[in-house]
Amino acid sequence: MSAWQFTGTNEPLVKADPEIPRPQAGEVVVDVKAAGLCHTDCGVMVDEGWLPLLAKTPITMGHEVAGVISELGEGVTGWSVGDRVGLCPTTAVGAPGFGFDGGFGDKVVLGAEALVAIPDNVTMAEGAAGTDAGMTSHSAVVTAGQVKAGDKVGIIGVGGLGMIGLKVAVLAGAEVYVAELNEDVWPTAKEFGATACAKSISEFKEIGLDTIVDFAGFNTTNEAITTVRRFGRVVQVGMGNLQADISVRDLITNAVTLVGSNGGTPDDVKGVYDFIASGQLKPVIKEITFDEIPQGLEDLHDGKVVGRLVAVRD
Amino acid sequence: MSAWQFTGTNEPLVKADPEIPRPQAGEVVVDVKAAGLCHTDCGVMVDEGWLPLLAKTPITMGHEVAGVISELGEGVTGWSVGDRVGLCPTTAVGAPGFGFDGGFGDKVVLGAEALVAIPDNVTMAEGAAGTDAGMTSHSAVVTAGQVKAGDKVGIIGVGGLGMIGLKVAVLAGAEVYVAELNEDVWPTAKEFGATACAKSISEFKEIGLDTIVDFAGFNTTNEAITTVRRFGRVVQVGMGNLQADISVRDLITNAVTLVGSNGGTPDDVKGVYDFIASGQLKPVIKEITFDEIPQGLEDLHDGKVVGRLVAVRD
Repeated sequence: MSAWQFTGTNEPLVKADPEIPRPQAGEVVVDVKAAGLCHTDCGVMVDEGWLPLLAKTPITMGHEVAGVISELGEGVTGWSVGDRVGLCPTTAVGAPGFGFDGGFGDKVVLGAEALVAIPDNVTMAEGAAGTDAGMTSHSAVVTAGQVKAGDKVGIIGVGGLGMIGLKVAVLAGAEVYVAELNEDVWPTAKEFGATACAKSISEFKEIGLDTIVDFAGFNTTNEAITTVRRFGRVVQVGMGNLQADISVRDLITNAVTLVGSNGGTPDDVKGVYDFIASGQLKPVIKEITFDEIPQGLEDLHDGKVVGRLVAVRD
Repeated sequence: MSAWQFTGTNEPLVKADPEIPRPQAGEVVVDVKAAGLCHTDCGVMVDEGWLPLLAKTPITMGHEVAGVISELGEGVTGWSVGDRVGLCPTTAVGAPGFGFDGGFGDKVVLGAEALVAIPDNVTMAEGAAGTDAGMTSHSAVVTAGQVKAGDKVGIIGVGGLGMIGLKVAVLAGAEVYVAELNEDVWPTAKEFGATACAKSISEFKEIGLDTIVDFAGFNTTNEAITTVRRFGRVVQVGMGNLQADISVRDLITNAVTLVGSNGGTPDDVKGVYDFIASGQLKPVIKEITFDEIPQGLEDLHDGKVVGRLVAVRD
């Protein structure tokens, strides 16, 4: 089969032809129809701090995957060949593209417990974006962020995840303030329900934000800590930088809580699919081909992308 | 009256003779009998990052105060001249020594809502240590740390606050592991119920600590984040450094929660007094005179102190 593989930090992706994988007991083979591109992928490409999280190299990247079941391993029940599925990336052995070969190839083999059915009126691209980006955003805002009706919420970074997070917060009944460097995205953020947009979350200091969810993590963690209200909550999702210099003074004197959030559960993925199927949530997606993945990652790294880049094939 | 005043960063304390204060409506005058010395005081002396938190300079330092009521302002009920009281430092206008003149002088004037009665069998020095050190430790372990029976808890730094925090955690039914650079303190920590002591909390990585309460904050925040178990909780109380470089990667991938904790309520102070009165908690206190306060702060800064330094007078 054909697959884009990561071979080492600061090395370009390599088009490889790995063996077609076989399913073990409890596993399925999914023919990949859509795979999202994520800032995390850009991070893995250039920052060796990610290496300990990779089960092997070379490895086929791609952790936001939707496709069609093409083969069932022994003992798999409740699923059939031909079913349209999204892959919840928080498996016991890690995410596709990290713990095992991921979705930037033709096929992924993984345990059936990671599968989530994609509703008929949800596209494969939406199904892919609903896994990592959707699940993570849903979990960050609802579970880690504890966002509820009437809250004032800051969202830092409205890329693939943040835009969904913004919408989830709005659907939860919050008043949402967006920090986003790329002004081209502001109109979309406002369509999604943002009350106001600015370049830095600190511009909303006077609002007294209850919760700030940082989907960027590019030196924004400390801005969030120093901006949120006393006894406020900062959820860190984006890992733009692997280290952050934070003000312990502000953290302590304002009794701020900083929560690291990653992943979520198949229920979060299902929650996102339900939002999409009902028309309440429409992820902003730009479709590309699988051949365009390396260029797509460069564009993403350079901040040229609005919404989620998803590679799709028929 | 006589008072040790802070006049500026990196300046020695000045013995001043400020006007004797008068109580406003709702306020009381407390004749200071005991005032604890805190690492925070050492921080204020040398780090200009503290200046924004001081209502004025010069200011009489001392935020851990116990004494006897000598005068009641208009409208104060429930208290009498001669009552033995501790001062809860989390008042609406800040702590003594920060929001207004504190306890390194003869008298403190403050709102009566900050008063907590000191039980008869609790000494003035214990009453002082029970306010900031006791209250903060109690609140950090019980409220922010959510420590409960059966938990595995790490305590970083068993100085004045940490030693009380250790005891509170033990009384809550936790198994407690202590990180403390000063090995001279280890035997006391073990008498207080610590299961084991080490120089760095990271030595207890394999234990899978549920919660780590960092009473030091001398570059220990990140050690705590990288040591606590997945979905664990780090409570930051000590402000040894005003900034910390943390691993966002570990925070996110292990879904760690970092909580800034400061202060507490009069109820926390009362909770600590009750522990002391019942004999369950015996703070380790070294008494000095008020004249020895500057030297005491130097000793504290140099790590030469076991337990809490408290200046006392008859």
